[in-house]
Amino acid sequence: MMLDTSTIPGYTIYREEQGGSSQIDPATLQPPLHPLDQLSVEEISVTAQVIRNHTAFQAVKFNCITLREPRKDEYAAFKSGQMSTLDRRAFAIVIDKSSGKVAEVVVNLTSGTVEDLKVLDEVAPTLTLEDLDVCERICRTDERVIRVCQEIGISDMSKVFLDAWAIGFDDRWGMERRLQQGLAYYRDSAYDNQYAHPLDFSVVLDTDKEEVLAVDVRLVNGERTQVPFEQHNYLPEFIGDGYVHDSLKPIDITQPDGPSFRMRGNQLHWAGFKMHIGFNYREGIVLSDVSMYDMYEKRDRELFNRISVVEMVVPYGNPQAPHQRKHAFDVGEYGTGLMTNSLKLGCDCKGVIQYLDAVLSTGDGLPAVIKNAICIHEEDNGLLYKHTDYRDGSVISARDRRLIISQIITAANYEYAFYHIFTLDGTYKLEIKLTGMLNTYCLHSSEIAAPYGTEVARGIDAHNHQHIFSLRVDPSIDGPRNSVIEQDAMPSEHPVGSEENMYGNAFLSKPTLLRTAKEGVRDYCHETSRAWAIVNPHSTNPSSRKPVSYKIINNNCPPLLAKPGSMVHSRAAFARHSLWVVPYKDYEIFPAGDYVCQSSGQPGHPHNPTIVDWAERDESIEDTDIVCYVQFGLTHFPRTEDFPIMPAEPVSVMLRASNFFVKNPALWVPPTAINKDKTSQYAVSPVDATPPSSCCAAPRIPSRL
Amino acid sequence: MMLDTSTIPGYTIYREEQGGSSQIDPATLQPPLHPLDQLSVEEISVTAQVIRNHTAFQAVKFNCITLREPRKDEYAAFKSGQMSTLDRRAFAIVIDKSSGKVAEVVVNLTSGTVEDLKVLDEVAPTLTLEDLDVCERICRTDERVIRVCQEIGISDMSKVFLDAWAIGFDDRWGMERRLQQGLAYYRDSAYDNQYAHPLDFSVVLDTDKEEVLAVDVRLVNGERTQVPFEQHNYLPEFIGDGYVHDSLKPIDITQPDGPSFRMRGNQLHWAGFKMHIGFNYREGIVLSDVSMYDMYEKRDRELFNRISVVEMVVPYGNPQAPHQRKHAFDVGEYGTGLMTNSLKLGCDCKGVIQYLDAVLSTGDGLPAVIKNAICIHEEDNGLLYKHTDYRDGSVISARDRRLIISQIITAANYEYAFYHIFTLDGTYKLEIKLTGMLNTYCLHSSEIAAPYGTEVARGIDAHNHQHIFSLRVDPSIDGPRNSVIEQDAMPSEHPVGSEENMYGNAFLSKPTLLRTAKEGVRDYCHETSRAWAIVNPHSTNPSSRKPVSYKIINNNCPPLLAKPGSMVHSRAAFARHSLWVVPYKDYEIFPAGDYVCQSSGQPGHPHNPTIVDWAERDESIEDTDIVCYVQFGLTHFPRTEDFPIMPAEPVSVMLRASNFFVKNPALWVPPTAINKDKTSQYAVSPVDATPPSSCCAAPRIPSRL
Repeated sequence: MMLDTSTIPGYTIYREEQGGSSQIDPATLQPPLHPLDQLSVEEISVTAQVIRNHTAFQAVKFNCITLREPRKDEYAAFKSGQMSTLDRRAFAIVIDKSSGKVAEVVVNLTSGTVEDLKVLDEVAPTLTLEDLDVCERICRTDERVIRVCQEIGISDMSKVFLDAWAIGFDDRWGMERRLQQGLAYYRDSAYDNQYAHPLDFSVVLDTDKEEVLAVDVRLVNGERTQVPFEQHNYLPEFIGDGYVHDSLKPIDITQPDGPSFRMRGNQLHWAGFKMHIGFNYREGIVLSDVSMYDMYEKRDRELFNRISVVEMVVPYGNPQAPHQRKHAFDVGEYGTGLMTNSLKLGCDCKGVIQYLDAVLSTGDGLPAVIKNAICIHEEDNGLLYKHTDYRDGSVISARDRRLIISQIITAANYEYAFYHIFTLDGTYKLEIKLTGMLNTYCLHSSEIAAPYGTEVARGIDAHNHQHIFSLRVDPSIDGPRNSVIEQDAMPSEHPVGSEENMYGNAFLSKPTLLRTAKEGVRDYCHETSRAWAIVNPHSTNPSSRKPVSYKIINNNCPPLLAKPGSMVHSRAAFARHSLWVVPYKDYEIFPAGDYVCQSSGQPGHPHNPTIVDWAERDESIEDTDIVCYVQFGLTHFPRTEDFPIMPAEPVSVMLRASNFFVKNPALWVPPTAINKDKTSQYAVSPVDATPPSSCCAAPRIPSRL
Repeated sequence: MMLDTSTIPGYTIYREEQGGSSQIDPATLQPPLHPLDQLSVEEISVTAQVIRNHTAFQAVKFNCITLREPRKDEYAAFKSGQMSTLDRRAFAIVIDKSSGKVAEVVVNLTSGTVEDLKVLDEVAPTLTLEDLDVCERICRTDERVIRVCQEIGISDMSKVFLDAWAIGFDDRWGMERRLQQGLAYYRDSAYDNQYAHPLDFSVVLDTDKEEVLAVDVRLVNGERTQVPFEQHNYLPEFIGDGYVHDSLKPIDITQPDGPSFRMRGNQLHWAGFKMHIGFNYREGIVLSDVSMYDMYEKRDRELFNRISVVEMVVPYGNPQAPHQRKHAFDVGEYGTGLMTNSLKLGCDCKGVIQYLDAVLSTGDGLPAVIKNAICIHEEDNGLLYKHTDYRDGSVISARDRRLIISQIITAANYEYAFYHIFTLDGTYKLEIKLTGMLNTYCLHSSEIAAPYGTEVARGIDAHNHQHIFSLRVDPSIDGPRNSVIEQDAMPSEHPVGSEENMYGNAFLSKPTLLRTAKEGVRDYCHETSRAWAIVNPHSTNPSSRKPVSYKIINNNCPPLLAKPGSMVHSRAAFARHSLWVVPYKDYEIFPAGDYVCQSSGQPGHPHNPTIVDWAERDESIEDTDIVCYVQFGLTHFPRTEDFPIMPAEPVSVMLRASNFFVKNPALWVPPTAINKDKTSQYAVSPVDATPPSSCCAAPRIPSRL
């Protein structure tokens, strides 16, 4: 069966030419510019070809084909010149179409061979967009679904829409089948907002067998819930002439000399920063080899080996079935890369934009490209510093810039915009903006939404939920051997009036070295403004006499509110804590497991360990190659203002230089007195239409004075 | 004695003409455009004249002359048309030059009379810039100061600089004198950074008598501390050709059709928001009558009566004398208005800027104007919302704007930039950027900086400190009668497996109504992501069926780290808690008291109550006219990166609509598909100099496929 993959919106699929040979000689593959570059279109084709030619599998569905990054020691040897070449490898997860067995395959593209093949039990790979596409298609023609729709007055099945979601874990079927669930909505017309018309049933289906397993109808007092038919729309088709034009005058952002960054392939240089920008189907953007030029030491200094968002979970807080199933792991269950938007100039970002494409693959092993998947641009960032000498009024000020590497994903109803931001003071900040549509459900006339949700419009319940993200930071603060020191702001322990604290004003930052992985499981503490310094114990700041460090600043980290014993508490164990620190291991990336779909989260799974298992090893995290998992996010009690489409809500986490540089690292930036801004201008108030000196609150100078 | 006030940098002083009559007939004063407008230059002159003509005072130093805002009931009656006119009033604090007595004077400018005069005991008014100017002048010629300088090898007193600070409370003199202290530094040349050369002594002086009272020298093991003579500079004079030019290409921000806001005098309209922008010597910017147009209800809806930053404290954490004295209250002790910078186009803000001037007064009662004290501009604010229908790839997105009303102050070494920000979703956010210079002190060769400070360069200790701001919000959420509900995100109390919480995933927002002022003293709770909803119990959101509200979002609120029993814990009582809610009283504004200088902070002061006294009354704060004091800020353990000049560090607090509007209030904003951005463009990578489709990670399309 050949899937009609050309229907994946936003994907450009590279099909084999009719009648042409589909065999490519691996020896003809062009080597990548950089070992961490995404697989090319050609490399994906070759990977699929090598796997298909392998005897073990004849009819497979490709779940993913992606770069197998080199092992860290290999890559370090290559970078240092100890190794002159690196073999290029691809990693694929395949599903045998007849048996349903899952296997991981490593293909050596340099040699054109399958290098490793591992068949795994009790795992369910990511649900791809093609997998999710099954849901609506088969449900609309399923007799049970048709019947439950008819019961609530819907006969036209083309108006019934099903958002396909992972199911969490459903013990009716366990792991024998690759499951998904469909959440049902109604649309009155093609572009009508379906989230205004949630239906009272959901569907469970077998992804690979394309079979509806159950239609779960919720009855309240034995009754079905009426469809909320009232429209709540936001698209231009419905707003019509409801927009207010010319109220917001244009703001033009132009860069006549181009952007300040330079790119060679996927390597970026900007304002002293250097990094490689990678991308894969699961994590989306991956930043590697991040370094910053130190103007004082006159050398590039390593900061981070690798940064990416490796997991997230969105647990919903309504206790009624089937809502406990709603706790989406958008990275692990669907793939942040797969759900990436193709960006549009001037819509998603303004200014001079450099886009990079994403190279993915289809279930048939065909290369698929998302054009403009990654946006790179810079923005003015306000004041970098300012000081006025109050004695003579002399002023110095400089303006900051930020470089932003971004990606926006659509996860059914929600959108997440990921902004990896660098500023001139050496800071890295991940800001995520949450927008899109609230997940909604219908209210029976006897129900109220409180306390587990908000009635955002009559009969429409938007449930309480959390968004908890996991940022994986593989640091290399001045080199690979790092430690983490927890820092708590505390009053001096000495009493007021004592010699050590005579006036009672003493306070300090109390350091606690985290020595093993179990000690590395930490929570944020508001009372002490807790932060975590990633230090290099071998590199001492000559002024502060402290080890150089980058500090994790993370006070946007709500605790996981689901209780111990709940499914999500078990499956999203990573989200229980603000920070986990573990020693680095090759290919140990995903804190909720490599296979998140249908995972139970129980520790000790032979093929699917989670961060709980890694921490349980309790290995040393002191003065060694470590990895930090930083959890952050927000708890969302929906507001009527979030309906029918949510104003973007930002949340962020930061890594800031702390006694890393000997001085302010941005003193090379010319101040505004030298680097004059020619484009800013005085406003003339349109109402008064007089020059600013009189239209503002300037004094009327009395002639008598 | 006539002060040479023309030397106040940034002030334009309006002097009386030589030989001309200095008497103005109050009847000739032009009425203001708006009752909340600052006093005009002429009104300040008349106020001084009326006070001088009053018999009680013949020789006075004017500490302040500022608008006496109308009482709330009067102003409401005027706005509603019940009163046709409002008398215009000025408020002055004067110091009798001979006796040193302090009086508050209310002048009715409409009638030209002193309407109220109150002599106060045991209070010390704000230290003005003129007051602070005394310090360096008299210290340089003081024999004791000269001698202690000579002892450490400094003979040229023109190279000795003293930053004048309030003193907190020094029991050597109590309240008989108006005190200040001078922190001593050295400069090698005119623009040399003095904070690189802190000296080991400080001076206490009488502000009004211009008399040095004490020179406090710190001895370590009986020794003086050597001057750290090494230079650490950041000004162009010293950087020379050390700047890296052309690395940051220009970013031009232009608004060809002008800004989107309109102003009539000091009243601003922008994107549905309306407000009045006031200013005074103490609070700086004051926003009044903030409302937003509701597109659904087709009316302006009141949000806030008045918003301003009414206090801040910067306690330092080094226990050694004399550092316990360092806990600056920059609003109460110096006046945020008085310290305001005159802003420069393209340096402080970019785009099309509307400036407003500040009208202040001198010690002689002369009007003084800071040109361009307030900046009003708008910025693109990224995504307002976005959603992609994954089924067909259709996309809707709109861009957000923010309106920013800002002011930057210089408080000796530090600068604070205050940004009052409004966004299209109805949010108000106060962001403060901290920059300027760290306060520094010298280290004796036997000392180390840790744990109470950081050695930011050899021999220079920057002490741990906190910045805690107090934002006063006088809400009027859909009208004057409001309440505050504390909201805590909590797991359901029902156990996993119970009927109410079968799956353990249930969580909710637990509401707690704050009923009296004592209950209104609250702390942030990280574990419950605590927020406070200011609600109008008489206005119910028809969808959510909850009272309409604006939520205080404040998780940047470190606890005050000074211990109970310390001077700062007593004086800065407001900073002990994240939130205080009290009933509204006319002219009850400043939580650390009207007179902060030399205040002890003890409750029960007859002329100088603080928020502790207001809360102690324990009056009802339920369904009444209330005021919220929101404390936020940060704890700063200095980093070497903060030296010699600090990269700006932002901190913010937010007020967000929560079930206030029935839907997203920004659906009137045309989406980008309709409102096309013509100025953004694709980048061409300068290194590869090829079009973006090939210079980025686009696939090389294999010809065979």
